[in-house]
Amino acid sequence: MGVSLKDVAQRAGVSVKTVSNVVNNYQHVTPGMRAKVQRAIDELGYRPNLTARHLRKGRTGIIALAVPEFGNPYFAELAGAVIDAAARHDYTVLVDHTAGLRENELLVSQGFRAQVIDGLILSPIHLETEDLTGRTGAAPLVLLGEREYEAPYDHIAIDNVAAAREAVRHLLGLGRRRIAFLGSRTGRERQPAHLRLRGWREELEAAGLPADDSLVVVTDGYGRADGAHAMAALLDRGAAPDAVFAYNDLIAIGAMRTLAERGLSVPGDIAVVGFDDIEEARYGAVSLTTVSPDKEAIARLAVDSLVAQLRDGTPPTGPRRPRPGHRLAVRESAPARPGGPR
Amino acid sequence: MGVSLKDVAQRAGVSVKTVSNVVNNYQHVTPGMRAKVQRAIDELGYRPNLTARHLRKGRTGIIALAVPEFGNPYFAELAGAVIDAAARHDYTVLVDHTAGLRENELLVSQGFRAQVIDGLILSPIHLETEDLTGRTGAAPLVLLGEREYEAPYDHIAIDNVAAAREAVRHLLGLGRRRIAFLGSRTGRERQPAHLRLRGWREELEAAGLPADDSLVVVTDGYGRADGAHAMAALLDRGAAPDAVFAYNDLIAIGAMRTLAERGLSVPGDIAVVGFDDIEEARYGAVSLTTVSPDKEAIARLAVDSLVAQLRDGTPPTGPRRPRPGHRLAVRESAPARPGGPR
Repeated sequence: MGVSLKDVAQRAGVSVKTVSNVVNNYQHVTPGMRAKVQRAIDELGYRPNLTARHLRKGRTGIIALAVPEFGNPYFAELAGAVIDAAARHDYTVLVDHTAGLRENELLVSQGFRAQVIDGLILSPIHLETEDLTGRTGAAPLVLLGEREYEAPYDHIAIDNVAAAREAVRHLLGLGRRRIAFLGSRTGRERQPAHLRLRGWREELEAAGLPADDSLVVVTDGYGRADGAHAMAALLDRGAAPDAVFAYNDLIAIGAMRTLAERGLSVPGDIAVVGFDDIEEARYGAVSLTTVSPDKEAIARLAVDSLVAQLRDGTPPTGPRRPRPGHRLAVRESAPARPGGPR
Repeated sequence: MGVSLKDVAQRAGVSVKTVSNVVNNYQHVTPGMRAKVQRAIDELGYRPNLTARHLRKGRTGIIALAVPEFGNPYFAELAGAVIDAAARHDYTVLVDHTAGLRENELLVSQGFRAQVIDGLILSPIHLETEDLTGRTGAAPLVLLGEREYEAPYDHIAIDNVAAAREAVRHLLGLGRRRIAFLGSRTGRERQPAHLRLRGWREELEAAGLPADDSLVVVTDGYGRADGAHAMAALLDRGAAPDAVFAYNDLIAIGAMRTLAERGLSVPGDIAVVGFDDIEEARYGAVSLTTVSPDKEAIARLAVDSLVAQLRDGTPPTGPRRPRPGHRLAVRESAPARPGGPR
């Protein structure tokens, strides 16, 4: 730690300002000058100590995005959007995954890695309101996703109930009456149901149809395999659905794989609607109709919230609940009604 | 910056050791003690300065993984494996994306963010050997992927030529003779061809068949849309392939989407083999036969290389070229030959 910028400047025969420009990667340094300074840095073993400099301002220039899993392309696509939004504010994003485990979500939300990050964007699955209300002193936090919390943090989420109702309404418009919901979870029975499941229920009841619980399938997770197993279970118990609304696209894609294996046609026998609009949804042999959340808006609103908190040095006075937009992307798995408005 | 561990300990009425345990998130702190210490941290505005402590050892505890894009599930799956491998050595992973741009790859490889990271795992697309040989003084580096470099860095890659030859051999075993290659790039014409394209060529020639350049399609990128366009272009120019070997799974999946749109059957009319074995490959209406690299081994070897360099404090004496394994995952798009060995 004894080597300073000044030492490097003397060795390189340039000004301290020039060394600083190289270290900070400014564009207007010539390649020759950069090489000269880099050689001196190298010879002296100088470590550009930007972190310490940031720390003097109480900042590292890094925000963390903690998502349940990288394996779900929705989060990979969202991470790309967050990285782009953060870059516009000169922030680097450390992408972390919680594996959807409450203990990891708790660790992250309580400030694990507070030493490295200026702020945190967290998409929780199992975290409870009491986990968040007990949180103190950690970095500014913004929440994403459909779980609802009574906690003093900005929370960015599309209107999941409205979006689910639009999906079910679309299926009703195609004349489907036995619309299954794939992707409920047992662990939440004592909690308010999923917003998406609530939307399914509300729209069916608004249409004067029963929200038949025998058409709801619980899954262990939110992956393709969960969807494949859920669809098989539904068919095996003779539920005879004519449509499926899946909690997300991966579950829908897994369900469609099972339908292909069983020789059932989509949408002929069973129409399918997913949720997330991951790119994969557009490239199956039968492209997937799905709820498309505005991921760029979600990312921008989350980053803007953190940046505002960091700028003002305080948590938001009242937690904000912005509603990024969504639309139903209508494709082959549940096409537009012939002559219908879509 | 005036607040110390000691100040926090005094305020909380506990030992400095206890505060340290809380700050470092050790498991054996009771929740009550943790809350007490956290309250004192909060009231005093103490920022746990783990980064500075790491810096005294010349470490931050963070390694970076720079991949071309999050949008490709291969890299998302690989990132998950790297995070797991790094966690076993108590390293956190900062996942970065270069958007496949040479200038970003150059910035990253030259030590952009050297202030934050202890080491870098980089999967380059456009970086040249001369970009790497000019590199000085930055963090330990490990390379991933099929680009070959004459540079003094460990490079982890499966045997791409052998893997490609196995894929083509499998298609030949199914009686296919007009095997197209989708996913070559114009920008590399002056460089050695892709290793995967080389494998395609070598295996065809070993079988006494022409490596017909009219069956090679250049793509702009490595995504699903590129594969869809490439397949359409190939059919539109009347190339009449009976099989496709794609540079990666996304290109294969895009190609299969075009085949579905054109009413061509897979594998009946055209067999398809991809490369990467992303989970998506198993869930299409027709599951995808693909080269399956051992992603866990790739991640483990890359992290082990960095950890060894950091432990020894020196670059590897001779750059190592470990070869993680691979296998051909045979599925419906190019099934096992009836009665054949697979």
